[in-house]
Amino acid sequence: MNLGVCYYPEHWPEADWADDARRMRALGLDLVRIGEFAWSKIEPAPGVYTWSWLDRAIEVLHAEGLGIILCTPTATPPKWLVDLHPEILPWDKHGNPKRFGSRRHYCFSSPAYRRESARITEALARRYGDHPAVVMWQTDNEYGHHGTHESYSPDAARAFRRWLQRRYESIDSLNTAWGTAFWSQDYRSFDEVDPPNATVTESNPSQHLDYQRFSSDEICEFNREQVDILRRYSPGRRIAHNYIGDFTKLDHHAIGASLDIAAWDSYPIGLLSEGDASEADKAHWLHHGHPDFAAFNHDVFRQCSAQWGVMEQQPGPVNWATHNAAPAPGMVRLWTWEAFAHGAEFVSYFRWRQAPFAQEQMHAGLLLPDRQETAVLKEVALVSSERDTIGTPETTLARVAIVLDYPSLWQQEIQPQGRSGSALKLARALYSGCRKLGLDVDIIPQGADMSAYALIILPSVSILDAEMCGRLRDSGASVLAMPLTGSRTCDGHIPENLSPGPYANLLPMQVRVFESLPPYVKIGVNLDGQAFSGSLWRESVTSIAQALAVFENGEPAWLRNERMHYLACWPDEPFLLHVLRRICREEDLEVRDTGRDLRLRRAGNIQFAFNYGSDAIDLACVGAPEKGADYLIGARVMQGAGVAAWRIQLVLPDKME
Amino acid sequence: MNLGVCYYPEHWPEADWADDARRMRALGLDLVRIGEFAWSKIEPAPGVYTWSWLDRAIEVLHAEGLGIILCTPTATPPKWLVDLHPEILPWDKHGNPKRFGSRRHYCFSSPAYRRESARITEALARRYGDHPAVVMWQTDNEYGHHGTHESYSPDAARAFRRWLQRRYESIDSLNTAWGTAFWSQDYRSFDEVDPPNATVTESNPSQHLDYQRFSSDEICEFNREQVDILRRYSPGRRIAHNYIGDFTKLDHHAIGASLDIAAWDSYPIGLLSEGDASEADKAHWLHHGHPDFAAFNHDVFRQCSAQWGVMEQQPGPVNWATHNAAPAPGMVRLWTWEAFAHGAEFVSYFRWRQAPFAQEQMHAGLLLPDRQETAVLKEVALVSSERDTIGTPETTLARVAIVLDYPSLWQQEIQPQGRSGSALKLARALYSGCRKLGLDVDIIPQGADMSAYALIILPSVSILDAEMCGRLRDSGASVLAMPLTGSRTCDGHIPENLSPGPYANLLPMQVRVFESLPPYVKIGVNLDGQAFSGSLWRESVTSIAQALAVFENGEPAWLRNERMHYLACWPDEPFLLHVLRRICREEDLEVRDTGRDLRLRRAGNIQFAFNYGSDAIDLACVGAPEKGADYLIGARVMQGAGVAAWRIQLVLPDKME
Amino acid sequence: MNLGVCYYPEHWPEADWADDARRMRALGLDLVRIGEFAWSKIEPAPGVYTWSWLDRAIEVLHAEGLGIILCTPTATPPKWLVDLHPEILPWDKHGNPKRFGSRRHYCFSSPAYRRESARITEALARRYGDHPAVVMWQTDNEYGHHGTHESYSPDAARAFRRWLQRRYESIDSLNTAWGTAFWSQDYRSFDEVDPPNATVTESNPSQHLDYQRFSSDEICEFNREQVDILRRYSPGRRIAHNYIGDFTKLDHHAIGASLDIAAWDSYPIGLLSEGDASEADKAHWLHHGHPDFAAFNHDVFRQCSAQWGVMEQQPGPVNWATHNAAPAPGMVRLWTWEAFAHGAEFVSYFRWRQAPFAQEQMHAGLLLPDRQETAVLKEVALVSSERDTIGTPETTLARVAIVLDYPSLWQQEIQPQGRSGSALKLARALYSGCRKLGLDVDIIPQGADMSAYALIILPSVSILDAEMCGRLRDSGASVLAMPLTGSRTCDGHIPENLSPGPYANLLPMQVRVFESLPPYVKIGVNLDGQAFSGSLWRESVTSIAQALAVFENGEPAWLRNERMHYLACWPDEPFLLHVLRRICREEDLEVRDTGRDLRLRRAGNIQFAFNYGSDAIDLACVGAPEKGADYLIGARVMQGAGVAAWRIQLVLPDKME
Ligand SMILES: [Zn+2]
Ligand SMILES: [Zn+2]
Ligand SMILES: [Zn+2]
Repeated sequence: MNLGVCYYPEHWPEADWADDARRMRALGLDLVRIGEFAWSKIEPAPGVYTWSWLDRAIEVLHAEGLGIILCTPTATPPKWLVDLHPEILPWDKHGNPKRFGSRRHYCFSSPAYRRESARITEALARRYGDHPAVVMWQTDNEYGHHGTHESYSPDAARAFRRWLQRRYESIDSLNTAWGTAFWSQDYRSFDEVDPPNATVTESNPSQHLDYQRFSSDEICEFNREQVDILRRYSPGRRIAHNYIGDFTKLDHHAIGASLDIAAWDSYPIGLLSEGDASEADKAHWLHHGHPDFAAFNHDVFRQCSAQWGVMEQQPGPVNWATHNAAPAPGMVRLWTWEAFAHGAEFVSYFRWRQAPFAQEQMHAGLLLPDRQETAVLKEVALVSSERDTIGTPETTLARVAIVLDYPSLWQQEIQPQGRSGSALKLARALYSGCRKLGLDVDIIPQGADMSAYALIILPSVSILDAEMCGRLRDSGASVLAMPLTGSRTCDGHIPENLSPGPYANLLPMQVRVFESLPPYVKIGVNLDGQAFSGSLWRESVTSIAQALAVFENGEPAWLRNERMHYLACWPDEPFLLHVLRRICREEDLEVRDTGRDLRLRRAGNIQFAFNYGSDAIDLACVGAPEKGADYLIGARVMQGAGVAAWRIQLVLPDKME
Repeated sequence: MNLGVCYYPEHWPEADWADDARRMRALGLDLVRIGEFAWSKIEPAPGVYTWSWLDRAIEVLHAEGLGIILCTPTATPPKWLVDLHPEILPWDKHGNPKRFGSRRHYCFSSPAYRRESARITEALARRYGDHPAVVMWQTDNEYGHHGTHESYSPDAARAFRRWLQRRYESIDSLNTAWGTAFWSQDYRSFDEVDPPNATVTESNPSQHLDYQRFSSDEICEFNREQVDILRRYSPGRRIAHNYIGDFTKLDHHAIGASLDIAAWDSYPIGLLSEGDASEADKAHWLHHGHPDFAAFNHDVFRQCSAQWGVMEQQPGPVNWATHNAAPAPGMVRLWTWEAFAHGAEFVSYFRWRQAPFAQEQMHAGLLLPDRQETAVLKEVALVSSERDTIGTPETTLARVAIVLDYPSLWQQEIQPQGRSGSALKLARALYSGCRKLGLDVDIIPQGADMSAYALIILPSVSILDAEMCGRLRDSGASVLAMPLTGSRTCDGHIPENLSPGPYANLLPMQVRVFESLPPYVKIGVNLDGQAFSGSLWRESVTSIAQALAVFENGEPAWLRNERMHYLACWPDEPFLLHVLRRICREEDLEVRDTGRDLRLRRAGNIQFAFNYGSDAIDLACVGAPEKGADYLIGARVMQGAGVAAWRIQLVLPDKME
Repeated sequence: MNLGVCYYPEHWPEADWADDARRMRALGLDLVRIGEFAWSKIEPAPGVYTWSWLDRAIEVLHAEGLGIILCTPTATPPKWLVDLHPEILPWDKHGNPKRFGSRRHYCFSSPAYRRESARITEALARRYGDHPAVVMWQTDNEYGHHGTHESYSPDAARAFRRWLQRRYESIDSLNTAWGTAFWSQDYRSFDEVDPPNATVTESNPSQHLDYQRFSSDEICEFNREQVDILRRYSPGRRIAHNYIGDFTKLDHHAIGASLDIAAWDSYPIGLLSEGDASEADKAHWLHHGHPDFAAFNHDVFRQCSAQWGVMEQQPGPVNWATHNAAPAPGMVRLWTWEAFAHGAEFVSYFRWRQAPFAQEQMHAGLLLPDRQETAVLKEVALVSSERDTIGTPETTLARVAIVLDYPSLWQQEIQPQGRSGSALKLARALYSGCRKLGLDVDIIPQGADMSAYALIILPSVSILDAEMCGRLRDSGASVLAMPLTGSRTCDGHIPENLSPGPYANLLPMQVRVFESLPPYVKIGVNLDGQAFSGSLWRESVTSIAQALAVFENGEPAWLRNERMHYLACWPDEPFLLHVLRRICREEDLEVRDTGRDLRLRRAGNIQFAFNYGSDAIDLACVGAPEKGADYLIGARVMQGAGVAAWRIQLVLPDKME
């Protein structure tokens, strides 16, 4: 449980550095991230390196005992580089290059940029790789942000053709995999194939899916090239990347395989502003952030590498959302603890001091532009002292898992069959449902070990592995699958046995019709005489299995076969909670109703509680201890934005002993 | 009354073909459409033809006695052709080529594509033109879909200049016709003229109108070139094109002049999703489609060629709308009968079997991807048996006509004078009004014979022929004109005598002010002390004619001169129905209130009734027979999605005897 | 107080001209604007001039004693010129040229176009500069309309680099001013700098701000080049430009410095349709225009040159708004008097006769296309006779000023920190608040003389001059500053002492947090126990000054230090009116509640009242005279759309004596 901060010495007079370092240390910080966008300061002209300022900055921080997270500066190639090699620019969908002047202006498939990225990474790693202060590396910054996960440049087209050749070997295989018999799209050679952009109407979905895979793979390879260099010159240091939240256009697991730490940049209030919550929810949590949005990302990235952390933690208003409210007092502490409770190795605030110039001048820091302290500094100091009380919690063993599969998400974005739902949105709704019942959740890939879970949820995992279905059965867990699960093969086709594909081996059934409905229409569901509802998605299913709930026309809405469940519509929250409660009861999973603002998270034998609202909450409702002395943090009555933590007796279930 | 289906043998193993053919025949189908997008299968490389598979497919279908509708495959030029002649690609309004990868990626003005289209058409016609199974041809597919009715390529610019030269002969005539004195737009030669795209602000509306005419003419010529070839090599076969519904960017009458059959592709649930109905209506008819949307298109296309048909009939959820609901049980049968009741020669379902790959994999077929039957197959079989009971109905003689003029629609889209109304939307509102009074309607061009009608409605026919006005008068019918009727000359100018131009010869009046209003404002109308309302459009009119209704300021809202009527606003439905009822009473036209869900359609001496709702309807309200035995189809009480038909006594009006 | 009209003789048969001139004179018009878009008629081919028609047109108008406003025709370069020099076209943000076919298709930075503009201006000025009928010139037309205030052409990029070189002299200065240390944006030379378009994500805000300054300067220089030529060849004539309303992308003061008259084109009903009023307000004032929208622009342009006028006054429906309603009877007269009451030198109606062709054929004129009179002609004649009664009113000395600073508006549009508010919108809300209290308002630049005002309002003047703050203090006026005032340096950085920068010298305070909130959230304000509210913007301020109102958390919402005030949120109207009333009471400014529809305007010793509603208003509520004889225009009870005027006793405040 380390605390850190993002720092840009190149923004400030050198005279301030030593005092900055001293104040960081006094605050209890352990880590400082630097160098992120400093390429033009390190190499102001081609081949001309100016290391001295960075040498001195590192020494100053090192002198205070701060560990340094050093970044490769490749997210911001300097102007001279773009002018020398204009072909490194990424191209948009319309076939126009995106220009210099902000950041991320490079195409992952550009051979010229690959060379330059390796060159500057090597120069940096050679110089600082064995510096004792350097404890971690960050590769680049926020891969894929601002739509840069894909590029339609000529270099990208060439790389895509090579990628296809490797994947399919023969053009006939590609024609089959893409179903090019449709609309006369047959190709005679890989040279004929283009990226799927700027077509008259929708392009081939399998081609599009492959372009997503290719684009993610390109990022993966770009990252691995940097990682290989860093490992060579900086042995023993951990390597991280800082992902962005709520963004699944690249496969975090694939990239994470070569990293030590999957970090992400957590801006709860920005996420709420840009997310798909209702207006009422956006108003209610305006200063708190949605209670499940950051946690969802914590649980995503926790599974992507050996360790995980928050590389950038929002400390005040950001500058980039539609509306930019300030966190309520206490929320920065709360967010930090929620991250630690999820097992974060470190939480690093963005940023030390608000820069008074350029694009992010209205983005808050821990210090104001004039170096005055913000109110949030006290919250950071409080966290720092509280962690001494808590100690490092053990790893949590969640009993509920949600399977998040990137190719499935891509497939459904490419061919959504109706504009009002998405697999990611459904995954988040399911996650919120679990959290509202007080459950800890793992968000796992299809390849993960399933043996420890009591409940595994498949939120429209459309490209479902047959092999995974075997492990689902073997796990002994209850499984709850949602509409569109197993609805596609790995090529993006409807499976031969129709949807839900291999899931039908677990629960005998067949989806005959899938409907997408407008949000203003409700789907009636009858469950033992109780009326529930779904929306957006509805399937007509035939099955010999038991129907626990039916639609108004008698077709099954909820099917089960032993521990295997299937919902044939997108469940509205009351229906979802009812289903979850029933399965949990059967699995002996304890359920605690948290209501709108309270959230729980267990970390080893410590139970955390978080109040995402403005009103006080009495924790008696979730069986918390009576006596103040039993609390490591907080007390039974938790004020708005409050945190509480107490020790619990861990009862491991049979299967986990 | 033939039934057909669209079939893509190239999507399936050849081993399935014979069984498919057998099942089609068993179902009662007569026709199979094939070959539509098969260019790359027929000619996989330049000049290399692979006819054998298509030979065999035709033989297999022929062996079951199925008649074949063979398609020219020109909607999908293969990749090798695009690579050979990149200039065939269409260009968008911004001046960028649209690329290969979906369909309709060609510019109608490309000489290279004209050659290729003729070449493949001739090759196909030579080979199968006199095959006994081939009973019909379809040219290309859905002209103009996905915005391909216009292209801004260099080839198009050159063709536009030639078109202008033919139309105007001298550049002075063009300058006058376009009013180029405005904004210094004078041209010195045709070489100086460009397409009207990518301008700083709106381009010259007469130039734009000519570009629409040119674009429609180019499609017409492209189609005629194919037709000429087909007639040469395939004598005696009817030639059709399958238009898209609710789309008037090309002149169906001009194209239809060289065809035998105007077919269209009818997707009632998709039309409702994408159309301009209210949210309440979209919810109410979610699984039924709007009761007037498909019928409107039936009545449009019925007038465009000697015969008409439905080339693609929706059999289940489509894949392309914003939301894609399934038809309620019974609706596919109902839609089929509504088409036959409108005089369709054939109804052909799209498609035989749902393909599990590529862009339309989520588009339903009669069979599921695994060849299982869908529920709709029983409805098709029922229609097939019912048609034996009914026999072929005589042609209907509608007594009400709505004039739909394509250049007028274009003119108003180009220069709408306010964003919330359109001539097409108004025409549809008028059509719905008539249908709600149980009236059969013809939708006719200005050049049509008007002599048989009792009521002729002009929904903002802005470019009104003086000659047509003469025929209106001579028809002896009541005429009801709407705002903007006669508001433009054929060059798109305000007429010398102001709006309504030549209509003022029938009803002496002059429009001095036209206002477009936001949808949230109502216009009060006083009609003999009753309060009605209009919206969106309001005109200030001076006239010596009688005012049957007035606005709040006393200006006329409804003018009449003998049988000639004029409404000076867009009427809200109660006002419209009141006006229609009164005129019908005067013309001795029987009016029957159908309410929201019921619709009637007479076909010769057979009266059809259709229930577009979920609740039962007692047909007593429209004077249907008491006894079940009197019904050819159905009974007096019609369930949701029900169809009924009974014989009636035809009383021809005096003027039609 | 002159009345004029816009006239296009080139649209009409020469036979009509003499009668047109006679009717203009009979109506009481003094001025006729001609030649505006006539380039292709004056110079139909390169170097070929056809003056004769224009000679004759001028003579015909002169013969009736009409004064001519002659326009340079440079807003519409002819097609031959664009074909000769395609590089004169402006380029859009995506890097594509905008094409010929409408108007304003030129880039201000094109050297070729600068030459052509000077050439045609000189030709025109040489020929007519000393013609006795020519009393005024208009340069070009509506600079910046349709997004042409900026261009991203290669010529513009080159000119931008030269402009930067002049501004910064050294590239180091530019790097500092733009804060290029951020995101590795350092430049090594001016040659490396590009316009800020088509970047991956937001470009550098200081660069963007400079591009706005540069773009405005280019227009300024373009205009001055024409002015210099006109002054040389046409001594003694006043020179005007006709700006568009509600458009602040160019600095009217900078351009106005070389002009004699700042004119604008006033279309109140179009402004309301396109403006940010609520739906309820748009419906309420549909036929009247918003009571403050035109007046706001009058007060803007009144300060931009020595004189001001309305070059185009809406006489009926326009053609370009989303919805185009007609003015209520009386409104054209009312608008004309509102302009004269604000000190307009002239009001000129657009246009004499509605042209029945081309882009604006649905835009009304005083005559219909067939030369019939519209109803509005009587209103113009009435104004003409009423002005003889009134005489020319003295200049008004407003006691309230709102500071409108163009670079501040640009800065906030470039970096808005939340999408729902803007400095211009706030300025308009403040202006409306003052008008609702019966106050006359000046809208002034920062450099204006402040000494005469009792209340000066700073609506988010983000780039606040320290020097101006000194003059604010010295003025002795009350000052009311809004959020974001003083929040930026002239380079667009946060000031060293933080927001409100130099205003903190007048009111000791510091803004620590700025929040932007969604429009559906209210901010509670407590003012002496009364509950008020704000919205959209909220600041956390520390100050030793007195808090007159506080937010719910106790932080100051309204601060004062002697006469200096600061609101820390965007005030909802009741809060705003409360604040204004209190300050006015302290300053002895008489406040009269006008309600929704009534507006007052003093001109010298004449008090005008305007009824922007449909219902009658009794002027007793604002202390108007009892007796009809006391009224120069109208009477105590003012009908809808009515105007009244009476003499008042002018009491000059102490400081103005
Ligand atoms: Zn290069
Ligand atoms: Zn070619
Ligand atoms: Zn040139």
